[in-house]
Amino acid sequence: MHVPKAAILVIGNEVLSGKVEEQNARFLIGELRELGVDLKCILMIPDEPEEIAAAVKDLAVRFDYVFTSGGVGPTHDDVTINSIARAFGHRIVRHPELESLLRRYFGEGIDETRLRMADVPEGAELVYGEALKYPVLACGNVYIFPGVPELFRKKFTAIRDRFRVAPFYLRIVHTLEDEFDLAERLQAIADAHPTVAIGSYPNFATPEYKVKLTLESKVETAVDAAQQALLAVLDDALMVEL
Amino acid sequence: MHVPKAAILVIGNEVLSGKVEEQNARFLIGELRELGVDLKCILMIPDEPEEIAAAVKDLAVRFDYVFTSGGVGPTHDDVTINSIARAFGHRIVRHPELESLLRRYFGEGIDETRLRMADVPEGAELVYGEALKYPVLACGNVYIFPGVPELFRKKFTAIRDRFRVAPFYLRIVHTLEDEFDLAERLQAIADAHPTVAIGSYPNFATPEYKVKLTLESKVETAVDAAQQALLAVLDDALMVEL
Repeated sequence: MHVPKAAILVIGNEVLSGKVEEQNARFLIGELRELGVDLKCILMIPDEPEEIAAAVKDLAVRFDYVFTSGGVGPTHDDVTINSIARAFGHRIVRHPELESLLRRYFGEGIDETRLRMADVPEGAELVYGEALKYPVLACGNVYIFPGVPELFRKKFTAIRDRFRVAPFYLRIVHTLEDEFDLAERLQAIADAHPTVAIGSYPNFATPEYKVKLTLESKVETAVDAAQQALLAVLDDALMVEL
Repeated sequence: MHVPKAAILVIGNEVLSGKVEEQNARFLIGELRELGVDLKCILMIPDEPEEIAAAVKDLAVRFDYVFTSGGVGPTHDDVTINSIARAFGHRIVRHPELESLLRRYFGEGIDETRLRMADVPEGAELVYGEALKYPVLACGNVYIFPGVPELFRKKFTAIRDRFRVAPFYLRIVHTLEDEFDLAERLQAIADAHPTVAIGSYPNFATPEYKVKLTLESKVETAVDAAQQALLAVLDDALMVEL
Protein backbone atom coordinates (compact mmCIF):
# COMPACT_ATOMS: atom_id res chain seq x y z
CA MET A 1 0.00 0.00 0.00
CA HIS A 2 1.44 3.38 -0.99
CA VAL A 3 0.86 5.85 1.82
CA PRO A 4 1.23 9.42 0.55
CA LYS A 5 3.76 11.48 2.51
CA ALA A 6 3.37 15.18 3.10
CA ALA A 7 5.34 18.18 4.31
CA ILE A 8 4.12 21.54 5.56
CA LEU A 9 6.19 24.64 4.85
CA VAL A 10 5.25 27.61 7.01
CA ILE A 11 6.68 30.85 5.64
CA GLY A 12 6.76 33.91 7.85
CA ASN A 13 8.97 35.99 10.14
CA GLU A 14 5.87 36.66 12.26
CA VAL A 15 5.74 33.03 13.40
CA LEU A 16 9.45 32.68 14.19
CA SER A 17 9.57 36.00 16.00
CA GLY A 18 6.48 35.23 18.07
CA LYS A 19 4.33 38.06 16.72
CA VAL A 20 1.67 35.63 15.56
CA GLU A 21 0.95 32.21 17.00
CA GLU A 22 1.17 29.52 14.34
CA GLN A 23 -2.23 27.97 13.65
CA ASN A 24 -2.12 26.52 10.15
CA ALA A 25 0.33 23.67 10.63
CA ARG A 26 -1.48 22.84 13.85
CA PHE A 27 -4.78 22.65 11.94
CA LEU A 28 -3.30 20.69 9.05
CA ILE A 29 -1.74 18.03 11.31
CA GLY A 30 -5.22 16.88 12.32
CA GLU A 31 -6.66 17.19 8.82
CA LEU A 32 -3.92 15.13 7.17
CA ARG A 33 -4.14 12.41 9.80
CA GLU A 34 -7.87 12.18 9.34
CA LEU A 35 -7.37 11.97 5.57
CA GLY A 36 -4.88 9.09 5.92
CA VAL A 37 -1.95 11.17 4.65
CA ASP A 38 1.36 10.65 6.47
CA LEU A 39 2.79 14.01 7.54
CA LYS A 40 6.57 13.62 7.69
CA CYS A 41 7.93 17.14 8.07
CA ILE A 42 6.98 20.61 9.23
CA LEU A 43 9.42 23.38 8.37
CA MET A 44 9.01 27.00 9.44
CA ILE A 45 11.28 29.59 7.82
CA PRO A 46 11.50 33.38 7.33
CA ASP A 47 10.26 35.45 4.36
CA GLU A 48 13.56 35.01 2.52
CA PRO A 49 13.39 34.11 -1.18
CA GLU A 50 16.55 31.95 -1.37
CA GLU A 51 15.54 29.96 1.67
CA ILE A 52 11.98 29.46 0.47
CA ALA A 53 13.17 28.36 -2.96
CA ALA A 54 15.68 25.92 -1.46
CA ALA A 55 13.09 24.48 0.93
CA VAL A 56 10.44 24.04 -1.78
CA LYS A 57 12.92 22.39 -4.13
CA ASP A 58 14.00 19.94 -1.43
CA LEU A 59 10.54 19.13 -0.02
CA ALA A 60 8.85 18.77 -3.43
CA VAL A 61 11.13 15.88 -4.41
CA ARG A 62 11.05 14.17 -1.02
CA PHE A 63 7.29 14.17 -0.44
CA ASP A 64 4.10 13.49 -2.36
CA TYR A 65 2.52 16.74 -1.24
CA VAL A 66 3.89 20.02 0.05
CA PHE A 67 1.51 22.51 1.62
CA THR A 68 2.80 26.05 2.01
CA SER A 69 1.35 28.68 4.32
CA GLY A 70 1.99 32.40 4.10
CA GLY A 71 3.69 35.03 2.01
CA VAL A 72 1.09 35.35 -0.77
CA GLY A 73 -0.25 38.86 -0.15
CA PRO A 74 0.58 42.11 -1.96
CA THR A 75 3.25 43.59 0.33
CA HIS A 76 7.06 43.63 0.21
CA ASP A 77 7.29 40.69 2.66
CA ASP A 78 5.13 38.45 0.43
CA VAL A 79 7.72 36.57 -1.58
CA THR A 80 6.35 33.01 -1.70
CA ILE A 81 5.07 32.95 -5.29
CA ASN A 82 8.31 34.27 -6.79
CA SER A 83 10.36 31.93 -4.62
CA ILE A 84 8.35 28.87 -5.69
CA ALA A 85 8.74 29.89 -9.34
CA ARG A 86 12.48 30.10 -8.74
CA ALA A 87 12.50 26.66 -7.06
CA PHE A 88 11.04 25.10 -10.21
CA GLY A 89 12.90 27.34 -12.66
CA HIS A 90 9.61 28.72 -14.01
CA ARG A 91 8.83 32.23 -15.17
CA ILE A 92 6.14 34.31 -13.51
CA VAL A 93 3.16 34.89 -15.82
CA ARG A 94 -0.17 36.63 -15.38
CA HIS A 95 -2.85 33.96 -15.29
CA PRO A 96 -5.81 35.02 -17.49
CA GLU A 97 -8.39 33.12 -15.42
CA LEU A 98 -7.16 34.64 -12.15
CA GLU A 99 -7.01 38.07 -13.79
CA SER A 100 -10.65 37.86 -14.81
CA LEU A 101 -11.64 36.67 -11.31
CA LEU A 102 -9.83 39.66 -9.82
CA ARG A 103 -11.42 42.06 -12.30
CA ARG A 104 -14.83 40.69 -11.45
CA TYR A 105 -14.15 41.06 -7.72
CA PHE A 106 -12.40 44.45 -7.65
CA GLY A 107 -14.12 46.03 -10.68
CA GLU A 108 -12.61 47.36 -13.87
CA GLY A 109 -10.81 50.20 -12.03
CA ILE A 110 -8.52 47.54 -10.49
CA ASP A 111 -4.94 48.76 -9.96
CA GLU A 112 -1.65 47.01 -10.74
CA THR A 113 -1.05 46.02 -7.08
CA ARG A 114 -4.28 44.02 -7.04
CA LEU A 115 -3.70 42.62 -10.52
CA ARG A 116 -0.36 41.25 -9.39
CA MET A 117 -2.32 38.66 -7.38
CA ALA A 118 -2.85 36.96 -10.77
CA ASP A 119 0.91 36.55 -11.29
CA VAL A 120 1.83 32.89 -10.81
CA PRO A 121 4.61 30.47 -11.76
CA GLU A 122 4.12 29.37 -15.38
CA GLY A 123 2.23 26.08 -15.54
CA ALA A 124 0.59 26.51 -12.14
CA GLU A 125 -2.73 24.71 -11.75
CA LEU A 126 -5.89 26.27 -10.33
CA VAL A 127 -7.64 23.92 -7.91
CA TYR A 128 -11.29 24.61 -7.31
CA GLY A 129 -13.30 23.12 -4.49
CA GLU A 130 -16.85 23.41 -3.34
CA ALA A 131 -17.83 26.90 -2.23
CA LEU A 132 -14.48 28.31 -3.34
CA LYS A 133 -14.74 31.45 -5.45
CA TYR A 134 -11.01 31.95 -5.67
CA PRO A 135 -9.04 28.75 -6.37
CA VAL A 136 -6.05 27.25 -4.59
CA LEU A 137 -2.82 27.53 -6.57
CA ALA A 138 -0.75 24.40 -7.11
CA CYS A 139 2.70 24.14 -8.70
CA GLY A 140 3.20 20.48 -9.35
CA ASN A 141 2.78 18.84 -5.95
CA VAL A 142 3.12 22.13 -4.04
CA TYR A 143 -0.18 23.58 -2.82
CA ILE A 144 0.02 27.26 -1.94
CA PHE A 145 -2.13 28.66 0.86
CA PRO A 146 -2.44 32.07 2.48
CA GLY A 147 -1.14 32.50 6.02
CA VAL A 148 -4.29 34.13 7.39
CA PRO A 149 -5.79 31.26 9.42
CA GLU A 150 -9.43 31.84 8.40
CA LEU A 151 -8.50 31.74 4.71
CA PHE A 152 -6.14 28.81 5.14
CA ARG A 153 -8.86 26.71 6.76
CA LYS A 154 -11.53 27.69 4.28
CA LYS A 155 -9.36 26.89 1.30
CA PHE A 156 -7.95 23.63 2.60
CA THR A 157 -11.36 22.42 3.73
CA ALA A 158 -12.75 23.09 0.26
CA ILE A 159 -10.21 20.83 -1.47
CA ARG A 160 -9.35 18.38 1.31
CA ASP A 161 -11.16 15.37 -0.10
CA ARG A 162 -8.85 15.13 -3.10
CA PHE A 163 -6.14 14.00 -0.66
CA ARG A 164 -8.12 11.27 1.11
CA VAL A 165 -6.72 7.73 1.17
CA ALA A 166 -7.15 4.69 3.44
CA PRO A 167 -7.38 5.64 7.13
CA PHE A 168 -4.91 5.08 9.95
CA TYR A 169 -5.97 2.79 12.78
CA LEU A 170 -4.89 3.96 16.21
CA ARG A 171 -5.04 2.13 19.56
CA ILE A 172 -4.05 3.71 22.86
CA VAL A 173 -3.10 1.95 26.10
CA HIS A 174 -2.36 3.75 29.38
CA THR A 175 -0.35 2.21 32.19
CA LEU A 176 1.06 3.00 35.62
CA GLU A 177 4.20 1.02 34.83
CA ASP A 178 7.40 3.00 34.53
CA GLU A 179 8.81 3.70 31.06
CA PHE A 180 12.21 2.31 32.09
CA ASP A 181 10.59 -0.99 33.05
CA LEU A 182 8.57 -1.12 29.82
CA ALA A 183 11.47 -0.42 27.46
CA GLU A 184 12.57 -4.02 26.80
CA ARG A 185 9.06 -5.36 26.28
CA LEU A 186 8.22 -2.49 23.92
CA GLN A 187 11.35 -3.15 21.89
CA ALA A 188 10.29 -6.79 21.49
CA ILE A 189 6.76 -5.82 20.40
CA ALA A 190 8.11 -3.23 17.97
CA ASP A 191 10.51 -5.80 16.49
CA ALA A 192 7.74 -8.39 16.11
CA HIS A 193 5.28 -5.94 14.52
CA PRO A 194 7.33 -3.86 12.09
CA THR A 195 4.30 -2.50 10.21
CA VAL A 196 2.87 -0.98 13.39
CA ALA A 197 4.22 2.33 14.70
CA ILE A 198 4.54 2.04 18.46
CA GLY A 199 4.95 5.17 20.56
CA SER A 200 5.70 5.56 24.26
CA TYR A 201 4.96 8.89 25.96
CA PRO A 202 5.64 9.41 29.66
CA ASN A 203 3.29 11.66 31.57
CA PHE A 204 4.42 13.69 34.57
CA ALA A 205 1.65 16.27 34.47
CA THR A 206 -1.14 14.21 36.06
CA PRO A 207 -1.25 11.17 38.35
CA GLU A 208 -3.75 9.16 36.24
CA TYR A 209 -1.14 7.25 34.27
CA LYS A 210 2.62 7.11 33.85
CA VAL A 211 2.94 6.15 30.20
CA LYS A 212 0.69 6.44 27.18
CA LEU A 213 1.39 3.75 24.59
CA THR A 214 0.14 4.22 21.05
CA LEU A 215 -0.11 1.66 18.26
CA GLU A 216 -0.87 2.80 14.75
CA SER A 217 -1.05 1.22 11.32
CA LYS A 218 -2.86 1.38 8.02
CA VAL A 219 -3.69 -2.32 8.49
CA GLU A 220 -6.35 -2.81 11.14
CA THR A 221 -5.58 -6.50 11.73
CA ALA A 222 -1.89 -5.62 12.25
CA VAL A 223 -2.62 -2.95 14.85
CA ASP A 224 -5.02 -5.29 16.65
CA ALA A 225 -2.44 -8.08 16.71
CA ALA A 226 0.19 -5.72 18.12
CA GLN A 227 -2.25 -4.47 20.74
CA GLN A 228 -3.03 -8.04 21.84
CA ALA A 229 0.68 -8.80 22.07
CA LEU A 230 1.23 -5.65 24.10
CA LEU A 231 -1.63 -6.30 26.49
CA ALA A 232 -0.26 -9.79 27.08
CA VAL A 233 3.06 -8.47 28.38
CA LEU A 234 1.80 -5.54 30.45
CA ASP A 235 1.12 -5.83 34.16
CA ASP A 236 -2.69 -6.13 34.37
CA ALA A 237 -2.80 -4.53 37.77
CA LEU A 238 -1.14 -1.34 36.48
CA MET A 239 -3.25 -0.88 33.35
CA VAL A 240 -5.42 2.22 33.32
CA GLU A 241 -8.81 2.67 31.64
CA LEU A 242 -9.19 6.29 30.48
CA MET B 1 26.36 43.72 16.00
CA HIS B 2 26.35 39.92 15.75
CA VAL B 3 22.86 38.64 16.41
CA PRO B 4 22.93 34.94 17.30
CA LYS B 5 20.70 32.80 15.10
CA ALA B 6 18.90 29.73 16.36
CA ALA B 7 17.00 26.71 15.09
CA ILE B 8 14.60 24.40 16.91
CA LEU B 9 14.51 20.73 15.95
CA VAL B 10 11.40 18.94 17.23
CA ILE B 11 11.80 15.16 17.03
CA GLY B 12 8.73 12.99 17.36
CA ASN B 13 6.16 11.01 15.42
CA GLU B 14 3.62 11.98 18.07
CA VAL B 15 3.70 15.63 16.98
CA LEU B 16 3.46 14.97 13.22
CA SER B 17 0.69 12.42 13.67
CA GLY B 18 -1.34 14.68 15.94
CA LYS B 19 -1.20 12.44 19.01
CA VAL B 20 0.39 15.19 21.07
CA GLU B 21 0.06 18.91 20.52
CA GLU B 22 3.46 20.53 20.12
CA GLN B 23 4.25 22.85 23.03
CA ASN B 24 8.02 23.17 23.23
CA ALA B 25 8.75 25.09 20.05
CA ARG B 26 5.81 27.31 20.88
CA PHE B 27 7.31 28.03 24.31
CA LEU B 28 10.82 28.52 22.96
CA ILE B 29 9.71 31.05 20.32
CA GLY B 30 8.75 33.49 23.06
CA GLU B 31 11.80 32.73 25.20
CA LEU B 32 14.30 33.24 22.38
CA ARG B 33 12.69 36.50 21.33
CA GLU B 34 12.80 37.79 24.86
CA LEU B 35 16.46 36.78 25.08
CA GLY B 36 17.34 38.67 21.89
CA VAL B 37 18.16 35.50 19.95
CA ASP B 38 16.98 35.41 16.33
CA LEU B 39 15.04 32.19 15.70
CA LYS B 40 15.43 31.37 12.01
CA CYS B 41 14.09 27.85 11.62
CA ILE B 42 11.76 25.33 13.23
CA LEU B 43 11.93 21.80 11.86
CA MET B 44 9.73 18.95 13.02
CA ILE B 45 10.65 15.42 11.93
CA PRO B 46 9.92 11.79 12.86
CA ASP B 47 11.91 9.50 15.19
CA GLU B 48 14.12 8.32 12.34
CA PRO B 49 17.89 8.17 12.98
CA GLU B 50 19.09 9.06 9.46
CA GLU B 51 16.75 12.04 9.26
CA ILE B 52 17.67 13.32 12.70
CA ALA B 53 21.39 12.98 11.98
CA ALA B 54 21.03 14.79 8.64
CA ALA B 55 18.96 17.59 10.21
CA VAL B 56 21.38 18.10 13.12
CA LYS B 57 24.38 18.15 10.80
CA ASP B 58 22.74 20.76 8.58
CA LEU B 59 21.32 22.99 11.33
CA ALA B 60 24.47 22.93 13.51
CA VAL B 61 26.56 24.54 10.77
CA ARG B 62 23.92 27.06 9.68
CA PHE B 63 22.96 28.42 13.10
CA ASP B 64 24.66 29.53 16.30
CA TYR B 65 22.38 27.41 18.46
CA VAL B 66 20.26 24.35 17.80
CA PHE B 67 17.72 23.29 20.41
CA THR B 68 16.35 19.76 20.09
CA SER B 69 13.19 18.50 21.72
CA GLY B 70 12.25 14.86 22.17
CA GLY B 71 13.54 11.33 21.73
CA VAL B 72 15.78 11.15 24.81
CA GLY B 73 13.92 8.56 26.91
CA PRO B 74 14.65 4.85 27.39
CA THR B 75 12.31 3.27 24.82
CA HIS B 76 12.81 1.98 21.28
CA ASP B 77 11.48 5.23 19.77
CA ASP B 78 14.07 7.36 21.62
CA VAL B 79 16.84 7.68 19.07
CA THR B 80 17.96 11.31 19.41
CA ILE B 81 21.23 10.78 21.32
CA ASN B 82 22.54 8.13 18.93
CA SER B 83 21.48 10.19 15.94
CA ILE B 84 23.28 13.31 17.20
CA ALA B 85 26.42 11.26 17.84
CA ARG B 86 26.17 10.02 14.27
CA ALA B 87 25.71 13.59 12.97
CA PHE B 88 29.03 14.63 14.54
CA GLY B 89 30.80 11.32 13.89
CA HIS B 90 31.27 10.76 17.64
CA ARG B 91 31.15 7.50 19.57
CA ILE B 92 28.64 6.93 22.35
CA VAL B 93 30.31 6.75 25.76
CA ARG B 94 28.97 6.35 29.28
CA HIS B 95 29.47 9.67 31.07
CA PRO B 96 30.88 9.08 34.58
CA GLU B 97 29.26 12.19 36.07
CA LEU B 98 25.83 11.31 34.66
CA GLU B 99 26.28 7.71 35.79
CA SER B 100 26.90 8.79 39.35
CA LEU B 101 23.90 11.15 39.26
CA LEU B 102 21.74 8.24 38.07
CA ARG B 103 23.12 5.88 40.73
CA ARG B 104 22.39 8.46 43.39
CA TYR B 105 18.83 8.93 42.08
CA PHE B 106 17.86 5.31 41.37
CA GLY B 107 20.02 3.63 44.03
CA GLU B 108 22.74 1.04 43.61
CA GLY B 109 20.28 -1.60 42.34
CA ILE B 110 19.94 0.48 39.14
CA ASP B 111 19.44 -1.61 36.00
CA GLU B 112 21.08 -1.31 32.59
CA THR B 113 18.02 0.40 31.02
CA ARG B 114 18.29 3.25 33.49
CA LEU B 115 22.09 3.40 33.27
CA ARG B 116 21.80 3.88 29.52
CA MET B 117 20.55 7.40 30.24
CA ALA B 118 24.22 8.21 30.96
CA ASP B 119 25.27 7.22 27.42
CA VAL B 120 26.09 10.36 25.44
CA PRO B 121 28.08 11.40 22.38
CA GLU B 122 31.78 11.56 23.26
CA GLY B 123 32.81 15.10 24.16
CA ALA B 124 29.29 16.17 25.15
CA GLU B 125 29.14 18.98 27.69
CA LEU B 126 26.95 18.98 30.79
CA VAL B 127 25.25 22.32 31.31
CA TYR B 128 24.06 23.04 34.82
CA GLY B 129 21.70 25.83 35.73
CA GLU B 130 20.14 27.03 38.93
CA ALA B 131 17.88 24.47 40.58
CA LEU B 132 18.81 21.81 38.04
CA LYS B 133 19.74 18.48 39.58
CA TYR B 134 20.19 16.75 36.24
CA PRO B 135 22.10 18.83 33.65
CA VAL B 136 21.23 19.71 30.06
CA LEU B 137 23.34 17.87 27.51
CA ALA B 138 25.08 19.90 24.80
CA CYS B 139 27.04 18.58 21.81
CA GLY B 140 28.89 21.56 20.45
CA ASN B 141 26.18 24.13 19.74
CA VAL B 142 23.34 21.56 19.92
CA TYR B 143 21.37 21.65 23.18
CA ILE B 144 19.38 18.49 23.82
CA PHE B 145 16.06 18.70 25.68
CA PRO B 146 13.41 16.13 26.58
CA GLY B 147 10.06 16.28 24.76
CA VAL B 148 7.92 16.22 27.91
CA PRO B 149 6.78 19.85 28.13
CA GLU B 150 7.16 20.22 31.92
CA LEU B 151 10.76 18.99 31.75
CA PHE B 152 11.56 21.01 28.65
CA ARG B 153 10.43 24.24 30.30
CA LYS B 154 12.14 23.54 33.58
CA LYS B 155 15.47 22.73 31.92
CA PHE B 156 15.43 25.59 29.44
CA THR B 157 14.41 28.10 32.09
CA ALA B 158 17.31 26.98 34.28
CA ILE B 159 19.93 27.73 31.61
CA ARG B 160 18.20 30.44 29.57
CA ASP B 161 20.30 33.37 30.73
CA ARG B 162 23.44 32.01 29.10
CA PHE B 163 21.80 32.83 25.74
CA ARG B 164 20.82 36.43 26.50
CA VAL B 165 22.04 39.20 24.19
CA ALA B 166 20.85 42.72 23.32
CA PRO B 167 17.04 42.93 23.05
CA PHE B 168 14.83 43.42 20.02
CA TYR B 169 12.79 46.62 19.82
CA LEU B 170 9.31 46.15 18.44
CA ARG B 171 6.73 48.74 17.40
CA ILE B 172 3.21 47.92 16.24
CA VAL B 173 0.81 50.09 14.21
CA HIS B 174 -2.76 49.12 13.35
CA THR B 175 -4.69 50.61 10.48
CA LEU B 176 -8.03 50.41 8.70
CA GLU B 177 -6.32 50.96 5.36
CA ASP B 178 -6.34 48.05 2.95
CA GLU B 179 -3.13 46.02 2.51
CA PHE B 180 -3.32 46.48 -1.28
CA ASP B 181 -3.31 50.25 -0.84
CA LEU B 182 -0.45 50.13 1.65
CA ALA B 183 1.85 47.93 -0.41
CA GLU B 184 3.74 50.65 -2.30
CA ARG B 185 4.28 52.84 0.73
CA LEU B 186 5.50 49.88 2.78
CA GLN B 187 7.96 48.92 0.08
CA ALA B 188 9.40 52.44 0.16
CA ILE B 189 9.73 52.40 3.96
CA ALA B 190 11.33 48.94 3.88
CA ASP B 191 13.81 50.10 1.22
CA ALA B 192 14.72 53.23 3.18
CA HIS B 193 15.16 51.35 6.49
CA PRO B 194 16.98 48.15 5.61
CA THR B 195 18.00 47.37 9.21
CA VAL B 196 14.37 47.34 10.34
CA ALA B 197 12.21 44.26 9.72
CA ILE B 198 8.79 45.46 8.60
CA GLY B 199 5.85 43.07 8.64
CA SER B 200 2.32 43.47 7.30
CA TYR B 201 -0.42 41.17 8.58
CA PRO B 202 -4.00 41.49 7.33
CA ASN B 203 -6.77 40.74 9.79
CA PHE B 204 -10.12 39.35 8.66
CA ALA B 205 -11.17 37.87 12.00
CA THR B 206 -12.29 41.07 13.75
CA PRO B 207 -13.48 44.50 12.56
CA GLU B 208 -11.10 46.54 14.78
CA TYR B 209 -8.36 46.90 12.21
CA LYS B 210 -7.51 45.70 8.70
CA VAL B 211 -3.75 45.45 8.85
CA LYS B 212 -1.24 45.10 11.67
CA LEU B 213 2.13 46.58 10.78
CA THR B 214 5.18 45.60 12.79
CA LEU B 215 8.61 47.23 12.88
CA GLU B 216 11.48 45.51 14.63
CA SER B 217 15.20 46.05 15.05
CA LYS B 218 18.06 45.59 17.46
CA VAL B 219 18.72 49.33 17.11
CA GLU B 220 16.10 51.36 18.96
CA THR B 221 16.83 54.61 17.09
CA ALA B 222 16.42 52.78 13.78
CA VAL B 223 13.05 51.30 14.68
CA ASP B 224 11.85 54.68 15.93
CA ALA B 225 12.96 56.40 12.72
CA ALA B 226 11.16 53.79 10.61
CA GLN B 227 8.04 54.16 12.73
CA GLN B 228 8.07 57.95 12.27
CA ALA B 229 8.49 57.51 8.52
CA LEU B 230 5.62 55.01 8.46
CA LEU B 231 3.27 57.19 10.49
CA ALA B 232 4.00 60.08 8.13
CA VAL B 233 2.69 58.16 5.10
CA LEU B 234 -0.32 56.48 6.70
CA ASP B 235 -3.80 57.99 6.51
CA ASP B 236 -4.28 59.51 9.99
CA ALA B 237 -8.03 59.04 9.84
CA LEU B 238 -7.66 55.28 9.41
CA MET B 239 -5.09 54.67 12.14
CA VAL B 240 -6.30 52.57 15.04
CA GLU B 241 -5.21 52.82 18.68
CA LEU B 242 -5.36 49.35 20.26
